[in-house]
Amino acid sequence: MGNKAVGSASNGSKVGSYKSLDIMMNPKSVAVIGASNNPDKVGHIILQNYLDEGYGGKIYPINNKSEGSILGLRAYKSIRDVKAQIDLAVVAIPAQAVPAAIRDCGVAGVKSAIVVSGGFAEVGNVKLQEEMMSIARKFSIPIIGPNCLGVTDPKSRVNTMFLPSFKIDKPKVGGVSFASQSGAVGSSIFDLIAHEGFGLAKFISYGNAADIDEVDIIEYLANDKDTKVIVFYLEGVKRGREFFEAAKRASQVKPTVIIKGGITEEGAQAAHSHTASLAGSYEAYEAMFRQAGFAIAKDMQELLDYAKIFDTQPLTTGNRIAIITNGGGTGVIATDAIYQNGLSLATLSKESNAALRKVMPPIVNIRQPLDMAGDADDKRFAAALSTISADPNVDAIIVIALFQTPGADSRVAATISHYNGVIKKPLVVVSIGGSYTEVHKNMLESTGVPVYSSPGAAARSLAALINYSKYRKGVL
Amino acid sequence: MGNKAVGSASNGSKVGSYKSLDIMMNPKSVAVIGASNNPDKVGHIILQNYLDEGYGGKIYPINNKSEGSILGLRAYKSIRDVKAQIDLAVVAIPAQAVPAAIRDCGVAGVKSAIVVSGGFAEVGNVKLQEEMMSIARKFSIPIIGPNCLGVTDPKSRVNTMFLPSFKIDKPKVGGVSFASQSGAVGSSIFDLIAHEGFGLAKFISYGNAADIDEVDIIEYLANDKDTKVIVFYLEGVKRGREFFEAAKRASQVKPTVIIKGGITEEGAQAAHSHTASLAGSYEAYEAMFRQAGFAIAKDMQELLDYAKIFDTQPLTTGNRIAIITNGGGTGVIATDAIYQNGLSLATLSKESNAALRKVMPPIVNIRQPLDMAGDADDKRFAAALSTISADPNVDAIIVIALFQTPGADSRVAATISHYNGVIKKPLVVVSIGGSYTEVHKNMLESTGVPVYSSPGAAARSLAALINYSKYRKGVL
Repeated sequence: MGNKAVGSASNGSKVGSYKSLDIMMNPKSVAVIGASNNPDKVGHIILQNYLDEGYGGKIYPINNKSEGSILGLRAYKSIRDVKAQIDLAVVAIPAQAVPAAIRDCGVAGVKSAIVVSGGFAEVGNVKLQEEMMSIARKFSIPIIGPNCLGVTDPKSRVNTMFLPSFKIDKPKVGGVSFASQSGAVGSSIFDLIAHEGFGLAKFISYGNAADIDEVDIIEYLANDKDTKVIVFYLEGVKRGREFFEAAKRASQVKPTVIIKGGITEEGAQAAHSHTASLAGSYEAYEAMFRQAGFAIAKDMQELLDYAKIFDTQPLTTGNRIAIITNGGGTGVIATDAIYQNGLSLATLSKESNAALRKVMPPIVNIRQPLDMAGDADDKRFAAALSTISADPNVDAIIVIALFQTPGADSRVAATISHYNGVIKKPLVVVSIGGSYTEVHKNMLESTGVPVYSSPGAAARSLAALINYSKYRKGVL
Repeated sequence: MGNKAVGSASNGSKVGSYKSLDIMMNPKSVAVIGASNNPDKVGHIILQNYLDEGYGGKIYPINNKSEGSILGLRAYKSIRDVKAQIDLAVVAIPAQAVPAAIRDCGVAGVKSAIVVSGGFAEVGNVKLQEEMMSIARKFSIPIIGPNCLGVTDPKSRVNTMFLPSFKIDKPKVGGVSFASQSGAVGSSIFDLIAHEGFGLAKFISYGNAADIDEVDIIEYLANDKDTKVIVFYLEGVKRGREFFEAAKRASQVKPTVIIKGGITEEGAQAAHSHTASLAGSYEAYEAMFRQAGFAIAKDMQELLDYAKIFDTQPLTTGNRIAIITNGGGTGVIATDAIYQNGLSLATLSKESNAALRKVMPPIVNIRQPLDMAGDADDKRFAAALSTISADPNVDAIIVIALFQTPGADSRVAATISHYNGVIKKPLVVVSIGGSYTEVHKNMLESTGVPVYSSPGAAARSLAALINYSKYRKGVL
C-alpha cells in the first residue's frame, strides 16, 4: 500500500482534490475535444450522449479538422478559439496528442479535464502520462483518467461515457454512487444498476488515476449529499494511509461496498497490465477494508446485493431474523442460510404467536420459519407482517414470496411494499422464478424493497447490513 | 441416514420402484380425482393444465358431486364408473378422503397414483399416511406424494402441477431433469429453468415420499435416456445405503447437481416440520455426496449455474483456463476467480502467441488473460477463439463478452455460438448488464452456450465440471 504505483501522481504533486469533482459533475459548460460527425469516433458518441441526456449547459465540439458544425452544434478547431468559460473538457483523441490538448486547455482557462483516451501508463507509456500531468500541474487543471469512461450524474445530466446509449440502460436519479477503476467493470455494473431499477447518484470511472484518485473519490462521495451508499471497484490504492483515513471518515456517515480486483497473485499481475496498478497484498487490503467498516463483496453480484440493502433499509445491530414464507422448502434453505451467515432465527413473543394462531388457518404451524403455505394471499402476508414487525424479539425480516403459488399475486407484492414503507426494521424479499416473478420483483424494487434471487444472497446481505450497523455504533 | 424417517414406507414394504415412474411419466390415460369447474379448486387447475399442454391421452375428470361435464369433458362420480384402463390417477382432494379414493383406484385397476394433497405426515398425520399406503400396498398401486406437485414431462405433455400456468414459464424439451422434495423449491426452480431457456427432460416433486422416494427417482433418472443432467433438492434420505449405491451408479453415466435443505440444526428442524424429513448430520450427507461424485451447490443460484454447464459442455479433467475478454477489469476479477476455485491460467504456446500477435492490434497485450480492448468486434473474437481453442495448453475457455462496449453486438454473440458448436473443449461466457445484454445472453443460451452473470459463477461452474470429469475418469 506504499506510494510506488507506476504512473501515479507521486512523480509530482497532485493538482486535483475531492473538491475538483464538484465542477466535473456540475459543469456549466463542456468542451468535447475530438468531437466528430463520424459515428465511429469516440468523440461522436460522447457528444451524442450529451445531446441525448438533455444536458442544459453550453457544449463546444472541438476538432482540429473542424467541419464547421458537428451534430448541429458550432464546432471549433481549437479550444482556444471558444472565448468563453469552459468548466470541463472531455478529451477523446489519440494519446500522443493529449499533452498538447491539455496545454490548449490551460491557455484557454479550462477548469477541469476528463481524459478518456487510453495508451498511457497502462501500456507502458509512463512518460507520456507524466508529460500530460506536468502540463496539467503548470496550469492547475485537475484531471480524471486517462484510460477511463469519466463521470455520469443523472441529476446534472453530465455523461462522458463513450458507449452507445442503446447498449446501456438508463438509471433513474437515486442514492447509489459507483466508482470503478475499470471502465469495463464500471459500465457493465452501471448497466446492471440501471436495469435492476436502482437510483444512481454519481458514476466515476477513473482509470489510471494520474491525478484524481480513489482517495479524492471516496472523500467526494462521503461529502456528497445525494450519495447514500458508495460502491467501489478497486484494483490498487496509491496513497494507502490517506485512503484508510478517508475510508474511515466515509464509514462514519455512509456505508461503502467494495470489491477488489487483483486478489490473487495472478489477478494482481493482470491488474498491473490493466490500469498500471500495483495491487499489493490482499491480506493487507482486506484488513484495511474491515477496519474501515467496508462491506467486502466476494463477487460482482454481491456488490449489487449489498448496495441494494444499504440503499433501501434502515440499520440494525440485532441479528434475530424472522422468516415469513409461502414455500416450506425455501424457508428451510433460508434458515440454513441465516445460520451460515452468523444470524439466528427470532423467537417470537407469546403475544405474537397467539395473534398469529388467530389469523392463520389450522394447517399453518405457528413457528419460525413461518410457513404460511402455498395458498397464502395478501391478507395472510399482511397479518404476518403486521404482527411480526411489531414483535420486540425481531430485528429484521426475510419475506419469501414465491409468485408461482396459487395465492400470490400483485396484491401480495403491494402488501409487502406497504409494510416496507411503514416498518422501521430491515426487510428483504426472496423471489425466485421467471417472467411472472420478474414483473413482481420489479414492482417491489421500484418501491424500495430489495429482492434477492436466493435465500443465501438475502442472508449475506442482511449480515453485511448488521455488520456495518455495529461498526457505526462502535460495537464492532 | 438411517431408516427412521417419520412417515416413511419403512412401516411396510414399498410398492413402487424406479420402474413405476415410467407409467407415471407416459400414461396413456389419466384420471383427475377432484376435478372441478370451480377455478379455485386444485383439481380444476390440474385438469386445465392437462388441456393447455395438449396432452394426447384420455382424460377422465372425477368428482363425487359430478356436474356431468367438467371443462368440457365427460365427468364421473367415481373412478370405478370409468370402465376403461387408467394408467395414472392424480388425487387432489382433502387428505381424509384420500385412502378411500386410493381404494377406489385399486378396485378400478388404476396402475399408479400421484397424491398432491397435503395434510399427512408433514402435519403429524402419520397414521392417515400409513392408512393410505396400506391400501396402496394391497392393490399394488405405486404412489408419488402425498404433499407434492407430482410430475411434468414436456415431451409426453404430462403435467400434474396445480399451479396456474400463467405464473410459470413453460420449459422447452431438453436434457435437465429436476427432482425436488419441496413443491415450492420445485416450482420456483422449474420456472427459472424455463425462463433461462434450459430444456427440461423430467420434473418430479415427491413431497413426503410415502412410497416413491429419492432412491427410486435417482435410479429412474440415471436410466432415463432423455436426461443428461440430474438436479436434486433434497431434505432427507430415508434409505441411506440404497441412495448412496444408486447415486454412485448414476454418476457413472451422468452428472448430478444437488442442494440439501436442513444443513444447519435449525434448518433441519424446519425441514422436519416441512416434509417430515429427518435431515440428519450434514457432514455425513456431504461426505456421501462427494463420494458419489455429486456437484454440491451451496445456493439455489449455484444449482442452475452448475446444471447449465453440465447440460451443454463436454467433460475435461484439465484445469488450464484461457480467458478472452473485451473488458480488462472483468478479466482481472476472472483471473482471481479461477485461482480461488483451484484452476489456473493457461500458458499459451509460442505458436498461439505469434498467431495472436499477427491478428490483434498493437494496443492488445498478447498474454493471459487476453484483454482484446473495448473495441473488439466479432472478427477479433473469432481470431482469438480460433487460435486459443486449438492450443494444446488450453483445457477450457472463459469468454467475457461485455455488450456495453462499442465493438460488441449480435455478431459477437453469433461468433461465440459458432465456436461453441465446433470447439471440443468447455466454453463458458460471462456477460453482465441490462436489457441489451439480456437479449444477447438469451441468444447465446438458446444455442447451448452457458452464460454467467459474474466471473465467480463461471469459475465455480468450470471447477464443478472438472471435478466431475475427474470422478468419471477415476482420477479423483
